[in-house]
Amino acid sequence: MIQNEDLCSLRWNEALGVVEVIDQTLLPHALQWRALDSLEAYCEAIRSMQVRGAPLIGVTAAFGLAFAAAEDASDAALAAAEAALLATRPTAVNLRWALEQVRAAVSGLEEAVRAEAAQAQAFAIREQDIRSCERIGEHGYALLRELPHGERLNIMTHCNAGWLATVEWGTALAPIYKAQAAGLPVHVWVSETRPRNQGASLTAWELQRAGVPCTVVADNSCGQLMRDGRVDAVIVGSDRTAANGDVCNKVGTYLKALAARANHIPFFVALPASTIDWHCREGGNIPIEERDPSEVSMATGRDCAGVSRSVRLTPDNVAAHNPAFDVTPAHLVSALVTDHGVCDASVASLSALRETVPSLR
Amino acid sequence: MIQNEDLCSLRWNEALGVVEVIDQTLLPHALQWRALDSLEAYCEAIRSMQVRGAPLIGVTAAFGLAFAAAEDASDAALAAAEAALLATRPTAVNLRWALEQVRAAVSGLEEAVRAEAAQAQAFAIREQDIRSCERIGEHGYALLRELPHGERLNIMTHCNAGWLATVEWGTALAPIYKAQAAGLPVHVWVSETRPRNQGASLTAWELQRAGVPCTVVADNSCGQLMRDGRVDAVIVGSDRTAANGDVCNKVGTYLKALAARANHIPFFVALPASTIDWHCREGGNIPIEERDPSEVSMATGRDCAGVSRSVRLTPDNVAAHNPAFDVTPAHLVSALVTDHGVCDASVASLSALRETVPSLR
Repeated sequence: MIQNEDLCSLRWNEALGVVEVIDQTLLPHALQWRALDSLEAYCEAIRSMQVRGAPLIGVTAAFGLAFAAAEDASDAALAAAEAALLATRPTAVNLRWALEQVRAAVSGLEEAVRAEAAQAQAFAIREQDIRSCERIGEHGYALLRELPHGERLNIMTHCNAGWLATVEWGTALAPIYKAQAAGLPVHVWVSETRPRNQGASLTAWELQRAGVPCTVVADNSCGQLMRDGRVDAVIVGSDRTAANGDVCNKVGTYLKALAARANHIPFFVALPASTIDWHCREGGNIPIEERDPSEVSMATGRDCAGVSRSVRLTPDNVAAHNPAFDVTPAHLVSALVTDHGVCDASVASLSALRETVPSLR
Repeated sequence: MIQNEDLCSLRWNEALGVVEVIDQTLLPHALQWRALDSLEAYCEAIRSMQVRGAPLIGVTAAFGLAFAAAEDASDAALAAAEAALLATRPTAVNLRWALEQVRAAVSGLEEAVRAEAAQAQAFAIREQDIRSCERIGEHGYALLRELPHGERLNIMTHCNAGWLATVEWGTALAPIYKAQAAGLPVHVWVSETRPRNQGASLTAWELQRAGVPCTVVADNSCGQLMRDGRVDAVIVGSDRTAANGDVCNKVGTYLKALAARANHIPFFVALPASTIDWHCREGGNIPIEERDPSEVSMATGRDCAGVSRSVRLTPDNVAAHNPAFDVTPAHLVSALVTDHGVCDASVASLSALRETVPSLR
């Protein structure tokens, strides 16, 4: 159940009977909802990163498969639709998981009732994501409200792990929205997150839309802000968490964790417990995706005429290297904030969490 | 004596009898030498950052005052020229120092011989800068050649502390050029250095011009590169060094120092000993310049038509914060590499250096 239409990334248009998503490729310079009115529209939305963030990709794909089932619910048609959706972002784990959930929901049903069951499952996945994020927010807020702070609580984040990456609330930003709702005066330092600038473009935009005061800084400034006592806590998301608590997240996270530790500032990582990779013993085993070097040699923004434009920053023919993630070792993580509660970033604490939650076993 | 006309930032055009400088505002996309043929041209070159880097600003200003003396060597005219040059970048310490050197050289002389004396002094300052940088290079190379490495020695640097910031050699890059000259296979990781991108635009350009292999990376990637064992040493410059060895340098330096320490990688700071601020007891006393927030909210580069263009990265009306420097505490610095030798970043070691060098006392 969407709580606030203005602070969600994917919504159901009752009148048209279709899903609409914010086209995030146009942010932060234009807000445009895009109706997903064909299977190809769903595929294109994921492929071209109009929707991004693992949870949101999963939810979108689930609705995509439900849409396909309404057009043709035969086994062959569903298999083809699932393959098409899966091919849009081949490495996205949530994408595969969500599609499998929808397929399981219709399996064994007669064709006539499959569309309805698929759609119900897609709505259930959406609802589950919203509830999971909200619980992360509650557990994280319980930590934040105990922190000493001055006039306002200054929280630093990295990349975008807010409602634009999920459906509502977000992961890293959920505790901040909960704090705001509870009347705790918060201010967020947003690191721009080169090379793709998700902080400057997405996090700043969604915080501004939610009325949370924030300030964008170069990634390079984050250490000095901590040295100067201007940061009370750091909260980031996690793309993948190893069984020992090592955290793989957007490149640049590790540098913030080092600076937080050196300056005795809590460093929290927010994540749904379902994304913990129990088969991955430690972060060193996680392969780091290398993306196109042109993301480093170029920057994209809006020119003075309002047109989106890419400009080249480096000399021609100079090499660039672009790892998308880095690994923060568990010993730098103050706490993991999950939808099932807060735990230490350690084998023991994570194992204990797993024991208490049936769905994680 | 310039060793290589292709690898210097300021040269004497014998035929025209004027100084020429590279217009660094056009780098890395165009190499254009600008003849400084009026006092106003000198002032504009410094003011608009066609020349930048404290040493180069000082040398340029010295030649500017010598130029003015050739036009009118009266006390009044020299005082006016000095004031005009000084006003171009009011906080640049080297600028004031260089102008005082030229004034001292002509003081007490008859007007007829002042121009010649001023020009001789400007050439002497230039020569002194080149020699100082070359000695930094020799001392730094002596450290580098002792480091274990694989096929090539991988050195990381930040911002631009090369011959574009001085006249020849540079400070942080001088040991790299010496290593290259000695046949040591080197490769440089160049962090782009947001928000002004001096790494991506200037350091990458000057290394490429010198034939030193290099790769540009986002500032965010520097930690993961170190974790992955792909960095053998870090070398940066210093804008101001306190008497206890704390280093104030381009923002982002501190994060690299933290990552180097965490990964047992030597972190060297290269500087002329003359820039040590003996009156500054520790880095915490150094005020950090805050620059225009638009440097963070925008990025500047060359568009597909070859035109230099600024694009906006952040939403309208979102705040940005832009500290230009940060302070790296002395305990993270493996060694200070000066023109008078290598020393520890400590009160004791710096005091000992000062005792051995008469000009520092």
